[in-house]
Amino acid sequence: MSQGIKVNSRVLDMEYAVRGPIPQRAAEMAAEGRRIIPCNIGNPQALGQQPIRFYRQVLGLLEDSAAITRERNLRAAGFKEALGNDVIDMAAAMLDGSRTGTGAYTESAGFRFIREAVARFIDSRDSVVSGSTNGSDPDSILLTDGASGGAVYVLEALISDPQDGILVPIPQYPLYSATITRCGGVLVGYHPDEEAGWALGRDNLERPLKAATEDGVKVKAIVVINPGNPTGALLDRQSMREVVDVAREWGLAIIADEVYQENTYGQEWSSFASIIGDEPIPLFSLHSVSKGFYGECGHRGGYLEVRHAPPVVGTNLDMRDILVKQASVNLCPNTMGQFLVHLMVTGPAEGSETHRIFLEEKVRVLDDLQAKASMIRGYFEQMTGVECFGRTGAMYLFPRLGPLPEGQTDFDYCMALLEKTGLVTVNGAGFGQAPGTHHLRMAFLPPFELIEEVMPEWVAFHNGWV
Amino acid sequence: MSQGIKVNSRVLDMEYAVRGPIPQRAAEMAAEGRRIIPCNIGNPQALGQQPIRFYRQVLGLLEDSAAITRERNLRAAGFKEALGNDVIDMAAAMLDGSRTGTGAYTESAGFRFIREAVARFIDSRDSVVSGSTNGSDPDSILLTDGASGGAVYVLEALISDPQDGILVPIPQYPLYSATITRCGGVLVGYHPDEEAGWALGRDNLERPLKAATEDGVKVKAIVVINPGNPTGALLDRQSMREVVDVAREWGLAIIADEVYQENTYGQEWSSFASIIGDEPIPLFSLHSVSKGFYGECGHRGGYLEVRHAPPVVGTNLDMRDILVKQASVNLCPNTMGQFLVHLMVTGPAEGSETHRIFLEEKVRVLDDLQAKASMIRGYFEQMTGVECFGRTGAMYLFPRLGPLPEGQTDFDYCMALLEKTGLVTVNGAGFGQAPGTHHLRMAFLPPFELIEEVMPEWVAFHNGWV
Repeated sequence: MSQGIKVNSRVLDMEYAVRGPIPQRAAEMAAEGRRIIPCNIGNPQALGQQPIRFYRQVLGLLEDSAAITRERNLRAAGFKEALGNDVIDMAAAMLDGSRTGTGAYTESAGFRFIREAVARFIDSRDSVVSGSTNGSDPDSILLTDGASGGAVYVLEALISDPQDGILVPIPQYPLYSATITRCGGVLVGYHPDEEAGWALGRDNLERPLKAATEDGVKVKAIVVINPGNPTGALLDRQSMREVVDVAREWGLAIIADEVYQENTYGQEWSSFASIIGDEPIPLFSLHSVSKGFYGECGHRGGYLEVRHAPPVVGTNLDMRDILVKQASVNLCPNTMGQFLVHLMVTGPAEGSETHRIFLEEKVRVLDDLQAKASMIRGYFEQMTGVECFGRTGAMYLFPRLGPLPEGQTDFDYCMALLEKTGLVTVNGAGFGQAPGTHHLRMAFLPPFELIEEVMPEWVAFHNGWV
Repeated sequence: MSQGIKVNSRVLDMEYAVRGPIPQRAAEMAAEGRRIIPCNIGNPQALGQQPIRFYRQVLGLLEDSAAITRERNLRAAGFKEALGNDVIDMAAAMLDGSRTGTGAYTESAGFRFIREAVARFIDSRDSVVSGSTNGSDPDSILLTDGASGGAVYVLEALISDPQDGILVPIPQYPLYSATITRCGGVLVGYHPDEEAGWALGRDNLERPLKAATEDGVKVKAIVVINPGNPTGALLDRQSMREVVDVAREWGLAIIADEVYQENTYGQEWSSFASIIGDEPIPLFSLHSVSKGFYGECGHRGGYLEVRHAPPVVGTNLDMRDILVKQASVNLCPNTMGQFLVHLMVTGPAEGSETHRIFLEEKVRVLDDLQAKASMIRGYFEQMTGVECFGRTGAMYLFPRLGPLPEGQTDFDYCMALLEKTGLVTVNGAGFGQAPGTHHLRMAFLPPFELIEEVMPEWVAFHNGWV
């Protein structure tokens, strides 16, 4: 043992820049007492975003269920700080629906009453009649530990051979590259058209498919992240139709990472489920409590919905059965994450005071995010050679840095920016980017005052550096 | 796609009997309105065990931190149902330690203040001076989603080649077999001596090691579950020393699954860390909030402690670095599980009223579990041919059923038992067992009344069946 141990080379090869050398250096700086602004990750509450009060009050009661009776008594006694009836009723209904509360293992796929609520949410979102052939089915939904959990199950099941490929956008969220590496498959990159706002044409998708096929790679699925990560860009409907057409013609499943579906800032957004309709194209769509206006990253709640689950060759099973089996080995997703998914897909009853406050909080968070993105984009315009494409969505901006000094990379740029300003970003190479281009990803989450303080420093740094 | 999809054969081959056909049939019966008693899994709160009040009250405040001020005001106003100062102070201290509360991603390895508390807990448990060379190091601890999360990371990193083997007890908890299958390694079984209370001699361990080596398998680690799962048996110190000797001589890491360390019912228990001391044998030890007297399965909290982390061949990293990288791809373990780990390794301040109630609850849960195990063992004595070996630990009994009727397996037995009595158990073959023997695992968790009702039915069923 003292000579060392050989470790799985796929695990060794995984890369995850979002938590790589730049944030590691930032942690050292923080330990030295220097100010750092963690924009390397979409982690709103770490940057001061307040949680939605209704959600947290309900979660508090779920943990301490004796408090439900106590709060009812406090209200009856006219205690003005007692929790609202909406909160108490929601917590009581959720405990009732769960039967076992927060402390027991649940079904492997998660509480059924929550999966039913998710199905209703999806149908309502997509303007589909529940129970119709286009409707969502609770038996095709798995609650997961964040969206990551679901993405990992799907990739792990699909990659059955070292020549199996997954079509992934470049740039991409490195969960996909890391998991494909670990599962021993081939990442086949496709390049959205940056200057067209990261749109997709048929050729963007088919060129890499043809090249991969010539190399003997069997591409099984296409990943689409909409709104984009790291680009932050909203995909237009025409681009989505191209994806569906290509999936149909090439026999691909679609993995739709739709965790930013609430982060669209007043612009139109469609789910892949609604674009596919009843075409028999396998769809795996992901959502999460980590983003949106709630930003409950720490709770690790999410869901995976499967549509048109393909049968599994050589068995009498379909893909849903496989996914549930995978989930069963981990016993169940954490209950608090599951309960938060329930809150995400329901919310307080309309018309109540609780609902009014809830809406106020929601609008404030989303308006602030939109204003912050716009403010930061304004500063980009003062930076020589910097351009930022696409309609703002998600929580990220992904500016193209323009030409860098000879021999310098975007990694060097981000490291220098960190040392100079404390701003933690992730360089474009951490996500992949078109050859010869340089980018960085910044989460547009810091408080306004901090943005106003640090962005001029960045402008000065940039214009001195390039 | 309509012809079906090829799925990763390792994922297809995984088996997980704890959630297999028997509980699936039980779910059908429950849907038909029949009484079922889920003893297939160690899920205490699903069978009516009450959560530890102190833990839940603190967790409730962590979610709704505004309630901290409110409770202080209620106390100041003399409201007798206000939460105790201990609860309020603990919640406030934990929020302070975390800085970001429950809603933000944490470090990949989990909150540092909790890892520090875990290290102090381990040192105190093992009577080691904190900070000494034998002490536990917060940098070598990863908080995980249940203990399963940690076990999966370790196996996934260690299995680097299809001929890499892991030495696993037979019977074993199927997380290990399922994960080894998924990672494409070889499960090398060792057979504790059932009639000697599942003790281990040198030969039990070396025989399979020699056979595996002759087959070209490179065994890298040995899994020990103590107290045992499914056997429920406590390992004696001599058996543990044999494991350490064999690990030293054969260059194995030890994976010590110690999640039942509180479920020892007054009997002596030692950690593998304390047996190994400062010998440079790599140790990965697991603990969890799911078991003990708290039984908080749904919260998916746990930790993995690494000792004597081996360097990784071909790199300047050691095994800890690899584990943290694996964790980083999942971003972080869920925060509520992390906070529960903190409560598990600390608890209310001694001497307070809260502490008195806490101890009362703890003692009652453990005394009840011990009494239930003993009561069920009593019924086994009335069953022809049934024997149950080992000192009672964990939450399980694993009786040997004796000879079954020609052509019948323990799966048939468990299915028939389920249909007859509603009792959900897992047959021995789901865990592995010595050829020609038949067992089942039963979690000894049902309420006393239910045990008294169902066990005579089982006795009658058994004596009529065999």
